[in-house]
Amino acid sequence: MPKTYLMIPGPTPVPNDVLREMSREMINHRGPDFAKLISETTELLKKVFKTNNDCFILTASGTGAMEASVVNFFSPGDKVVVGVCGVFGERYAQICSAYGLNVVRIKPPLGKGIEANDLEKVLEENPETKGVFLTHNETSTGVTLDLKELAPVVKRRGILLLIDAVSSLGAIDLPTDELNIDVVVSASQKALEAPPGISMITVSPLAWEYYEKAKLPKFYWDLKKAKKSLEKGATPFTPAIPQIFALRKSLENILSRGLENNFKRHIMLGSAVRKGITSLGIFKLLVDERYASNTVTPVIPPPEINPDEMRKKLRQEFGVVLAGGQGELEGKIFRIGHLGYIEPSDILVTLSSIEIILERMGYNEIRGKAVESAEKVFLEG
Amino acid sequence: MPKTYLMIPGPTPVPNDVLREMSREMINHRGPDFAKLISETTELLKKVFKTNNDCFILTASGTGAMEASVVNFFSPGDKVVVGVCGVFGERYAQICSAYGLNVVRIKPPLGKGIEANDLEKVLEENPETKGVFLTHNETSTGVTLDLKELAPVVKRRGILLLIDAVSSLGAIDLPTDELNIDVVVSASQKALEAPPGISMITVSPLAWEYYEKAKLPKFYWDLKKAKKSLEKGATPFTPAIPQIFALRKSLENILSRGLENNFKRHIMLGSAVRKGITSLGIFKLLVDERYASNTVTPVIPPPEINPDEMRKKLRQEFGVVLAGGQGELEGKIFRIGHLGYIEPSDILVTLSSIEIILERMGYNEIRGKAVESAEKVFLEG
Repeated sequence: MPKTYLMIPGPTPVPNDVLREMSREMINHRGPDFAKLISETTELLKKVFKTNNDCFILTASGTGAMEASVVNFFSPGDKVVVGVCGVFGERYAQICSAYGLNVVRIKPPLGKGIEANDLEKVLEENPETKGVFLTHNETSTGVTLDLKELAPVVKRRGILLLIDAVSSLGAIDLPTDELNIDVVVSASQKALEAPPGISMITVSPLAWEYYEKAKLPKFYWDLKKAKKSLEKGATPFTPAIPQIFALRKSLENILSRGLENNFKRHIMLGSAVRKGITSLGIFKLLVDERYASNTVTPVIPPPEINPDEMRKKLRQEFGVVLAGGQGELEGKIFRIGHLGYIEPSDILVTLSSIEIILERMGYNEIRGKAVESAEKVFLEG
Repeated sequence: MPKTYLMIPGPTPVPNDVLREMSREMINHRGPDFAKLISETTELLKKVFKTNNDCFILTASGTGAMEASVVNFFSPGDKVVVGVCGVFGERYAQICSAYGLNVVRIKPPLGKGIEANDLEKVLEENPETKGVFLTHNETSTGVTLDLKELAPVVKRRGILLLIDAVSSLGAIDLPTDELNIDVVVSASQKALEAPPGISMITVSPLAWEYYEKAKLPKFYWDLKKAKKSLEKGATPFTPAIPQIFALRKSLENILSRGLENNFKRHIMLGSAVRKGITSLGIFKLLVDERYASNTVTPVIPPPEINPDEMRKKLRQEFGVVLAGGQGELEGKIFRIGHLGYIEPSDILVTLSSIEIILERMGYNEIRGKAVESAEKVFLEG
């Protein structure tokens, strides 16, 4: 097996010092060592969420935290607006529907984001809306929303704003309190550089008011239980202790590098991938620069290239693992993940491997082109 | 810090070869390596569950799998009977109530189990009962139910039998298919010798028939999603990959030692703890021998001994970590966990440490007594 370059939008590569935290001996989840661990990790998380709101760690995938953000704050029949820019926005809509909410979708054309004007219009047409769910960074289409424009549209109405930041938190700036965002969900295995298995959710005072009126059934996701337990340095149910050890370490790493530096690095990585890929003159990007995500880049190959076959060659020959398309994009695109513990070196290996594959397929004058464009971005910093 | 002896009923100590699996590099959860991992682990699990039914791994604590066993098979208003021998039976009842089921509790006196006659009577009085939830091994009170007697009472009525085997699976025999049990839930961090973070659930053909009629809302816990994904070697949502690596290893270990040998070892450990503790003439056991669990032993101290202070001394001076009481037993008992990766040596250290603490408190002629009784059990095999 060649060395592996995990260039997918999660789970992302985990640094060795964080991986080592995973193999620590078990501790009592009702004892003083765990109390210290959970309180320290929660405080570090709040810094990354940029919030003073309550923050809870759930033993579940990101989708579990999304479900928690639905069942804790709403009642059957409540009208909610859901932004659908891809599979994960649609997932939010489906969770809401599964619980009997009245879902209004805003669905821009494929590869586009949601504009403040369009959101304004939908909310005007649906004045009884109780909450708005938006996907900060839609992993399936590589679309990032401009929350600085969108948040005020929701918040000036005094209703709940709930953000899926699973694949953005730590990589793309998300000033939760500055934008007055009520609920943010994220997960360990993306830009937070830890293994999958836990997710997180923040809860504003307004969201707690909604909680008191919410009638959807809940038990495992009940955040009041989480709040009561956390006050005693515990969790309501046996938590994924190894991932919490790992997350504490990875958050320390990220914060010591500086959160703003982390955002800058992701801007540089995203720019290098987009410039590198387009410089080949063979591929198209799914997303306009205006909405382009700095954590994942979906690429449309020409008809003669099967993206899944290309991914298989890259994996088998070069150890470069890319993601395929999801939902309606299955078999039509490939996606390069560039978030978390990813360095320029990983981008260079990825682009170079793609060049070699293309040359073998008969494309000429490809060698070095994408790498050169990426190097230019790195040289400019 | 002294060496640590984690003698609590979960999370239990994890062997080093299993811990090392936790720090493997991340892999793509939509790729061939993960497909191999999840299918191998699921097949090993079925051997431990002794079932040919479907089996799914969930990224959640055991309580998550309990919730999955409620929302997948029932509709609001359905009548269910729940056996309540302690905190975890009561938790099942609360989950059912949270989702609007009509709950009938069978609650034997503290420290007793449920008898077939009593279950028979309750089911006769409630002929519209759709399912029965029982806790195989109640961790909070150390009561183990005799499922060979109880299962036929439920199954001859053709209704669902759902078993919480979180703290029994792998330690106490649970012949799922022989007893025709429809749904069994368990978790990684007890007798399966792996870290916490994942849980499992088995589903019989009859349970799938119930699924088709069930109207409770679900998304994250939806087992049809899990089934469809597993057929493609995946999970619906990003799974806790490290715990699945670890579980594969620990199941290989357990099965290579022999499942029946594992049951025998737990019988021996349980007997050694009970005989050791009672030989001191100071403590009482909460549970009669008829119902006594071989994975956890709740101990009632005399009024002059505060169990939580005793536990603190044991932890600080000897690194022996015991559990306290839960629910109505908080502050009244201590619990010795003896399941999973626990050897006679761990029992001897625990009993000896208790003897030293008691001698220091002024009890005489204590030294060696509990250890001697335990040694006798080990010598007899």
